[in-house]
Formats: sequence, structure tokens, C-alpha cells
Amino acid sequence: MRPVAVVAAGKTPFGAFSGLDLRALAVEAGEKCLANARVPRERIQSFYLGNFAGPAFTGQNHLAPYISMALGLEGIPATRVEAACASSGSAFFHAWAEVAAGIYDFVMVVGVEKMTSQSTARTTEILASAGDLAGEIRAGSTFASLFAMIARRHMHEFGTKKEHLAAVAVKNHAAGALNPDAHMRKVITLEQALAGRPIADPLGLYDCSLISDGAAAVILAPLERAAEFTANPVRILGVAQASDYVALDQKADITTFPAVRRAAEKAYQMAGVGPRDIQFAELHDCFTIAEIIATEDLGFTPRGCGGPYAMAGYTSLQGERPINASGGLKSKGHPVGATGVAQICDVVQQIRGQAGERQVARHSLGLAQNLGGSGATCVVSILAEA
Amino acid sequence: MRPVAVVAAGKTPFGAFSGLDLRALAVEAGEKCLANARVPRERIQSFYLGNFAGPAFTGQNHLAPYISMALGLEGIPATRVEAACASSGSAFFHAWAEVAAGIYDFVMVVGVEKMTSQSTARTTEILASAGDLAGEIRAGSTFASLFAMIARRHMHEFGTKKEHLAAVAVKNHAAGALNPDAHMRKVITLEQALAGRPIADPLGLYDCSLISDGAAAVILAPLERAAEFTANPVRILGVAQASDYVALDQKADITTFPAVRRAAEKAYQMAGVGPRDIQFAELHDCFTIAEIIATEDLGFTPRGCGGPYAMAGYTSLQGERPINASGGLKSKGHPVGATGVAQICDVVQQIRGQAGERQVARHSLGLAQNLGGSGATCVVSILAEA
Repeated sequence: MRPVAVVAAGKTPFGAFSGLDLRALAVEAGEKCLANARVPRERIQSFYLGNFAGPAFTGQNHLAPYISMALGLEGIPATRVEAACASSGSAFFHAWAEVAAGIYDFVMVVGVEKMTSQSTARTTEILASAGDLAGEIRAGSTFASLFAMIARRHMHEFGTKKEHLAAVAVKNHAAGALNPDAHMRKVITLEQALAGRPIADPLGLYDCSLISDGAAAVILAPLERAAEFTANPVRILGVAQASDYVALDQKADITTFPAVRRAAEKAYQMAGVGPRDIQFAELHDCFTIAEIIATEDLGFTPRGCGGPYAMAGYTSLQGERPINASGGLKSKGHPVGATGVAQICDVVQQIRGQAGERQVARHSLGLAQNLGGSGATCVVSILAEA
Repeated sequence: MRPVAVVAAGKTPFGAFSGLDLRALAVEAGEKCLANARVPRERIQSFYLGNFAGPAFTGQNHLAPYISMALGLEGIPATRVEAACASSGSAFFHAWAEVAAGIYDFVMVVGVEKMTSQSTARTTEILASAGDLAGEIRAGSTFASLFAMIARRHMHEFGTKKEHLAAVAVKNHAAGALNPDAHMRKVITLEQALAGRPIADPLGLYDCSLISDGAAAVILAPLERAAEFTANPVRILGVAQASDYVALDQKADITTFPAVRRAAEKAYQMAGVGPRDIQFAELHDCFTIAEIIATEDLGFTPRGCGGPYAMAGYTSLQGERPINASGGLKSKGHPVGATGVAQICDVVQQIRGQAGERQVARHSLGLAQNLGGSGATCVVSILAEA
């Protein structure tokens, strides 16, 4: 396997864009990405689309050629990958594999989701299709209630408090307020976070990520050739995908995600680094409790300590290991299928030192963790200065 | 790139199975496949699911880990690929690439679709999501009417007649009647085929493939190790995926599919064979006109001659190049997401000489062609005796 680099990255802002359909968003991100490096589109040899529920949100299926042809990527294999909220993380993993194995030299990955054209009730229903329909969803669960059960159990096992959850929200809102592409640029206090109306107890409004429109894109190439195409390539040190049960009731312990631990273990091994080496990370904070558990499953902090770890400021923009300097899914927004590649774009931007007001101090080695459903898919990627 | 073999294949029958849900079908095919070779499930390193519209047909999304975990394939990357009716052909292509590039040694691919639990109107609507929604579908098109336009134009350009279309239906029904796993085992006459009620003129009932439930599975491994796991491995000589516009009105010529020609050219080149070497083939006869055009785009017959080529018997079970000895999508059935891998299973069965009453005479080199939508995705695979 040869070393692979991200040579280009581009994103749309995240938000509610009534005038832009799914394809327009994907094309905007793709064009920005193409403009970010000297890779002519004729050289792209394979195209991946990460998308969770475009058919349900927009009616349009068969989305990969629908978008690749609109980007002028004529004739090449165009493949849509679906893995719930980890759809474009998974697409990134497969694109990396193609370049690493020498199948292709230039592969483009776009992640996209257009969510805001549906009612909240319909959106909740579409998102719930990533859970176990016959079991937990028909029994009345939503993703908020599934993660509420996870949070409740984490509280029971480890003494995690609502204040810990709120601290994650406050931190991510503070960072997102500095991100011009974030969906919700709004600083909140701990009191405001705690006073959010209940969604699924113990989770309140500020514990939940946003329903957003958006797209993100990257181009991968062999590291040895990367300098031909960009002045600041970013090396993919390690990337791994793992899976687990879709249904929460099949898991032996709902306060930890085996798919995250498996993917992290492989990615660390491939990268030749450990948790202590990771300087900053973009984690999948679909709910505040998810970020807390991710910091534990990735080995940043012992099990049960994710809450105090966030509350004590270790993961803030100025902390020893900033987490979600982009604002995270919580404040930047969470267009489901775009999130995995958007995290990669955010890590790339930090490594390049181009993150503006939210630039982290130590930024040569970053990690992105993208979670599908309540942990049935996870992709962990480790990137570094080339 | 190292040579790759199919070491195991397994399928469910195709039909309408009210007692089996999507996961049950996929697991049945997967278990039959695992029983077809001495590959312990613990050795499978990557799992692909080809599925077009499981979320729309069944409500369940995030299907890859949902199925891989039910098959006991714990923790490995589980990836769903969607490419309309070419979903599992595309999954097969990506699985081949992983083994060929040396990323993994053992990869399982399952294709599945559960279609018969929805009304015909809703099924038509779901299938139409593989077309261009904003353009052709909102204007009233269905896939039958899109292929009717294609047929009409082919008639205009080349003098193709309804009798030619009917000859394809008669041939495929004759073969399917010999296939115990076919959805519709019913011999029909040319008169019956021509008398089918109109669906979208010039296409009648017998020009259209079936709406079916079903699943199919294969396991891929490096050719050099294949003999450890099966007495009759089948070598993948060439496989390629290509794409084109989703909307018919963007194509310069609707009587030929550039994605088919591109994929075929690459697959032939990789295999080191040409059209004349292909002894038999499974082609994507979603409509009879699609098989006729495929025989032309694959180079079996000159452009415009696909109709007479079928009518004269060249492609019958006893002809010089049998096409759709399984019965094809027309008679075997067309559970959309299963079709690509099912074609591979059918070619494997023929190469192994295990096709029973529908065994073709020359069976050492076969081709499978899997089409998505009205030609926006195509996967061509060439397989041979190992």
C-alpha cells in the first residue's frame, strides 16, 4: 500500500438553503474542491458519493452518476456509498483504499445531504431509518431517544451529569461562532445549555446536532505525486472502517461503541501513532453524549471520564487537545451524508493552518471520527502534515 | 493487480415471498454462499451490500451492517453500494478491486431487493427515482415509457420490429422455464408475446421484466489461493464500471449506451478477449429492447442488428452464443439490487457445468452485463474457468 494524500478540499457553507437542491450543493462543493488544486477534472479516475437518504429527502436516487456527470467527470466509475451518518466517511475510506492500492491515482469523494425541505416529523422518520426499524423504531424510538438511553446509562455507570453534556454544547457553540461556514453561529452559556427545552430526557435542545443542508469534497492522490498538484498536501496516515449491531438492544454495553474502538485501533496501528499523539480532532457529536463517549473510545481519556474531560476545558479551542474546533455537528451543522468528508476538510484546513480565528495551536496531526446510526458503522481517519 | 476468483456463490429463488423480509432474503443467500466453499466466516475481511431502494421499499436504511452482523461477520467494514439496478454489479466491481489490489483476501458481496410488499403504483414510483426526477419523471415518464422511447427510436433508426422484441421475450421465457429458481416458469409463444397488453407502446406486458424479491451472494479470493477453498473456482478475467447521464434527454443518441460501451471496452481489455470470445452471457434485459441494444453495445452483433440476431436464434439456449440462459430479468425475475450478483452466480453456475437443464454447450468463458437506470451506470464482468 502506498502513502496517500488529500490534495484538495472544498465545502459549501452548512445551513438551510431553500434555493439550492442536492445536486447544486454537491456541485458547489466539488467545484470548490477542484479549484483548490491543480488536478484537471479529466484526470479524476473514480468518483465516490457519500449520501445517506437523498432518495427519501429529495425523491432522487442513483445519485452518483447524477452528480459526477454534472461535475464533468465523464464516464468514470461513480459509486454511491450509504452508511447512515458515516456515509461519506465510508466513501473516503474506500477512495483511500483505491489510491493506496494503486488502482487509481486521482479519486474524488463528495458527501452531500439536503435535509431542510422536509417537515421535522418526516426528517425524524427518515433519520430513524438508520436505526432498527422492526425493533427499536417501531417501538417508538427516535435517534434522540436512543442517545438519551445511552446518556442515561452513562450517567448511571459513571456519574456523568447534565452539566457535562452542556459543557460540550457550550464548547462547540463557542468554536462554531468563529466558523463563517457554520450553520448556527451562536455563543451559549452553560445556563442556556441547561435550560434548553427537553427533547428526550436527559437530552435537551442544546444536546442535539442540527438539521442542515450542505456538501463537502476532497481529492485524493498518491503522496509521492501530491506536490505537483498543491503546495500543501495532507497525508492520510491511517484510516479504518468497522461495524457493529444496528439495534441498541443487541449491544452488550451501550456506554461504549465497539465499532469506534475497532476502527480506532486499526487506524492508530496503520498510522503508527497512539491517542496521546493526536493534537486535535473532529468527533461525531450528533448528540453531546456521543462526543463524550468518542473521547473515551478513542483513548483520549479513560472510560467514564469523557464528561469531566470536556468540562475541565481540555478539549476547548485553547485546551490541550481541541475537539470540534469547527463547531462540530452541534454548531457547524450535520447534513448527514456530508459530515464525514466535511470533518476531513476541517482537519485538512487546520493542518494547513488556514482555520482563521478557530485555528488550533498544535495542528500537525489530527483525527476525524464519523459515526453511523447508534454506532453500527464507524470510520476513523488520521491525517498529518505531509 | 493479482488475479481474483469467485470461490463461492449462493442465491435465493426469485419470486414474491410474503413471509421473508429483506434481511431474511440476504441472510439466506449469504448462508448458501458460505456453505458453497470452505471459507469460514471469520476469515471474511470486508462485506459489500448491493441494494437499490431498501429504505423506500422496507423503511430500513443502514443496511450493510444490519445484514453483515446477522451473517455473523462481526466488526468488519460493511458497505452498502447503490447504483440503481446496477447496485450489486457495482458492489462486485469494488469487491474485486479490493482483492485484486491486495487490500483483502476474502470479500463477500450480497445483492438484495425486497419489492413485492409495496403496491404496483408505489413500486413504479420507487423505480422511477433512478431516473431524472426533476426532468423526465416529473414530466410523467416511468422506466417503461423511457425504454419505450428507446425502442421506438431503435425501430425508427434500424427497422427493429415488435416481433424482434417478442423474440427476446420468448427466448428468455423458454430458458427461465428450465430454471427452478426463476420467478416465472412459463413458456410463451411469439403470438402470446405480441398479444401482451400494452404497457408503454411499443412495449407490451411481455417486454417488461418482473418485480421480484430475492438475494444473491458471492465470495471473492485471490486466484492463487482459491483451490484451498473450492474444487471449482471461477476466475474474474475482467470487470469494469462506467457511467453516463441519468436523464435520457442529455444523451446524444438513445439507441446506444455509452456506459455499456465504456465498461465493455475496459473489461475486454483487462480480460484480453474480445466479443467473439464470449461463449455465453447474462445481459440486463429489464426490457426486451435493453437486451437487443446490449448485444450491439457489447459487440456481439453490429448496431441495429440486435433484433434479427435474437430472432434468428443465435442467442437461444441452443444457439451459438446463448444469452440469458437463466431466463434473464424477464423470466428469472428482477429484484433490482440482487440482479448484478445474481448474474455473476448464473455465469459461475454455467462455467462450473452445474446449470442442469439449461446448461449451455460451450461454457468456459461468460460475460455479465448489469445496467443502472436508463444507462447511467453499467458494470461488465468477464469470467472464465480457472
